[in-house]
Amino acid sequence: MYLKIDRSADQTLSRQIYEGIKTNILTGTLRADEKLPSTRQLAKDLYVSRNIMLEVYDQLLAEGYIHSVKGSGTYVTTDLFLENFMNSPPIIKENIMGLRHEPNKAIIDFRTGVPNLSLFPKEKWGALYKYVCENLPAMQLDYHEPRGCYALRYALVHYLRRVRGVSCDPSSVLITTGAAQAFTMITKHFSMQNKEVLAEDPLSHGILDILKQQNMSVHPVSADAFGINTSLLPKQLYPSLIFTTPSHQFPTGSVLPIKRRIDLIRYAREKLCYIVEDDYDSEFRFEGLPIQSMQSLDPERVIYIGTFSKILCPALRLGYMIIPPSLTHAMQNIKYTEDIHSPVLEQLTLAKFIENGYLDTHIRKSKKFYHQKNQLVIHTLKSKFKDKVSITGHTAGIHLAAEFESVNFTPSLLSHLENNGVKVPTVEEHALIKGLHTRELLIGYGSLSDDEIVRGIDILYQTIKNCREI
Amino acid sequence: MYLKIDRSADQTLSRQIYEGIKTNILTGTLRADEKLPSTRQLAKDLYVSRNIMLEVYDQLLAEGYIHSVKGSGTYVTTDLFLENFMNSPPIIKENIMGLRHEPNKAIIDFRTGVPNLSLFPKEKWGALYKYVCENLPAMQLDYHEPRGCYALRYALVHYLRRVRGVSCDPSSVLITTGAAQAFTMITKHFSMQNKEVLAEDPLSHGILDILKQQNMSVHPVSADAFGINTSLLPKQLYPSLIFTTPSHQFPTGSVLPIKRRIDLIRYAREKLCYIVEDDYDSEFRFEGLPIQSMQSLDPERVIYIGTFSKILCPALRLGYMIIPPSLTHAMQNIKYTEDIHSPVLEQLTLAKFIENGYLDTHIRKSKKFYHQKNQLVIHTLKSKFKDKVSITGHTAGIHLAAEFESVNFTPSLLSHLENNGVKVPTVEEHALIKGLHTRELLIGYGSLSDDEIVRGIDILYQTIKNCREI
Repeated sequence: MYLKIDRSADQTLSRQIYEGIKTNILTGTLRADEKLPSTRQLAKDLYVSRNIMLEVYDQLLAEGYIHSVKGSGTYVTTDLFLENFMNSPPIIKENIMGLRHEPNKAIIDFRTGVPNLSLFPKEKWGALYKYVCENLPAMQLDYHEPRGCYALRYALVHYLRRVRGVSCDPSSVLITTGAAQAFTMITKHFSMQNKEVLAEDPLSHGILDILKQQNMSVHPVSADAFGINTSLLPKQLYPSLIFTTPSHQFPTGSVLPIKRRIDLIRYAREKLCYIVEDDYDSEFRFEGLPIQSMQSLDPERVIYIGTFSKILCPALRLGYMIIPPSLTHAMQNIKYTEDIHSPVLEQLTLAKFIENGYLDTHIRKSKKFYHQKNQLVIHTLKSKFKDKVSITGHTAGIHLAAEFESVNFTPSLLSHLENNGVKVPTVEEHALIKGLHTRELLIGYGSLSDDEIVRGIDILYQTIKNCREI
Repeated sequence: MYLKIDRSADQTLSRQIYEGIKTNILTGTLRADEKLPSTRQLAKDLYVSRNIMLEVYDQLLAEGYIHSVKGSGTYVTTDLFLENFMNSPPIIKENIMGLRHEPNKAIIDFRTGVPNLSLFPKEKWGALYKYVCENLPAMQLDYHEPRGCYALRYALVHYLRRVRGVSCDPSSVLITTGAAQAFTMITKHFSMQNKEVLAEDPLSHGILDILKQQNMSVHPVSADAFGINTSLLPKQLYPSLIFTTPSHQFPTGSVLPIKRRIDLIRYAREKLCYIVEDDYDSEFRFEGLPIQSMQSLDPERVIYIGTFSKILCPALRLGYMIIPPSLTHAMQNIKYTEDIHSPVLEQLTLAKFIENGYLDTHIRKSKKFYHQKNQLVIHTLKSKFKDKVSITGHTAGIHLAAEFESVNFTPSLLSHLENNGVKVPTVEEHALIKGLHTRELLIGYGSLSDDEIVRGIDILYQTIKNCREI
């Protein structure tokens, strides 16, 4: 029997000898019913203490690799040869980052949906978490109920009522791991009943991916300059859900007028379906009061979904939904089987963050920051493209939509742009019905510096100009 | 038009007036096409500044409640009456706790699966989180890839290799929101292909709930004193998954012998199915070396699932799975649609916690603590019940199984016990085939004090004795 021992290794000697004998058995080097040397003999051969050998044999006995026959000795168990057994662990690469979007410093990326990450109040958040953690009663470290921590649901209800006109109490709030989980849970529930859903078009392709994964049958309802066009709601269909972004249409940025909101609610009441109101970034509103949620118009028919990915940062994965009473029980059950509940300590940190007024301060500060970026984007676009560009959706959020006269953003033009160092998302990539939005770009300014914005738009201008001249 | 203004309220005057007019319109008090007073007039009537009224009208215009006709005035938009519109927000109850298991101080609960929460190193964890948060490069606050943070996957690979004999590299690790999410993701994936699964019986009813929710067809394979009985594996069936707990059978606590492990792997290879190895608490092993994972015997056929709910605490919701290469792509996609990825900051905190050696220290300390509790339970049971009790599964974990000679733990006996102040889980409640385990209790000692253990077992003894005498 060949046993390699490395006295400078991390592993204890007993672990090494155990591994060696085990491998010899599984690979067939030690055969079934073969008699093993005595612990005394092996200890002597390997220059280790007898105690180590006793420990190794005990372990092999406990796991059933060997068995002892009284008065005769120790034998390898029958039939333990395992084909293709490898005991060489894989080689591990160097420690690298695990970001989804590997940042490419050379490229100016006008991507949407990501806030300026350097605004995140790291010091405040870290200190608050530490405080929450240190002062936590031990029983709060136990399993919680599926809806999440009451303290956060309580704080959210007051915040949402004040800022978003959402009408609810803590029992109808469910904390999710980001808004994505809320969409998945709702879709999963209704996929078992009625797979027909309506979606305003264009729509965030993240939601579309979720709907597709659950094999939902998605019927687009076109959005125009005012948002989802309610005169196009299909009369014959009985959908289970309607996906919409009334406060800040994604991606075109319009605010749905009250008339259409009421049309949508009347339709939902008639069809006995639910409206999924996705309120992803309307906290950052630059003009007037915040737009009121649709949820407050009919809390029985609207599922309201919110996220802290834009207000704070995506890495926290903190989202929530406000659930109509008729769905609370089903949603709690689904959350329970999904992951029992979301992590607790960051929920409690966020509750304190809201209670202490830090969230209001942070939003105020961020809004000022984004408004300045927003103005810079508008100013730079206008001064370059003059009246050849028309801008929409610029009164809120961290991106705007720009339509360019007689430019078609073909894949070839977009790849030209990227070769020149600028990546710009299009409305077209979020469209269900293709071919209607080829002149529109989305300019996300959340994560870019002033200099990057100006340079990026300049490259955009030059590239379009050159392509035209060719 | 009736407008109530409360100058001492939280809400701004403009918000109050806006809400008032809006409610009047939606409830039909202000009718379609009704002319509104001028802002000048209304400002005078309400004793507010004209600017406030201009702001309110601008907002109502922006949201489409009213429209202005040049040279004539401002009018209510047509057809905005919404039936059953309520503008009275629900009343919110006092701030209460949100625990799943409301702790009842009067009851001694021998529940399984929950560690001693006061062992959680709150100070160390909080300080580490703060450190991680403060020193985080901003780009780490962005979206990450579905598998989770590389730093944690890297730390886990080294930890699992050293402690659990798991053979993997960081690319095959996926961080989940607790082990529950791992089970849900796997089940979801295979439910689309082949709903037949094998499950050792008894099995944690948490997993059973997940399997049922996805409409899986569960075939029980009985476990005996050594764990899943591989001679009972069905020859005709082609299952997609086999659920097993080889290192510490849940709930009976046996260690699966190597012979059966090999049988199981040969079966999986023949049927081209996967073994789901649930390794929920084998870190707390009181005798010998830790039992090696099954995963290392065949990383292509075994999905290994682990959790920090028992080692640290459930509230963190930190779990993971080690995925065979053939499933990595599918699992990443599912995780992406589930919730994109798990929260980042606690992942990075855990990575540091492992790297700094804090996890090893914590496990060492906890093991000592639980071993003492374990010995106390065994000693107290033996001294009360003498040879009428036989104890199994006591070499690891935070619970053990006890079988009582000629006692049937009927629902009535269990409710007697609870009336007397003791709650004890049974093996029966985790059984797929009912009626075989009625004499067995599970004694979870993770969260109980010495005094509670002694008193609880005494009540158990007295209750059984009295019931017999009746």
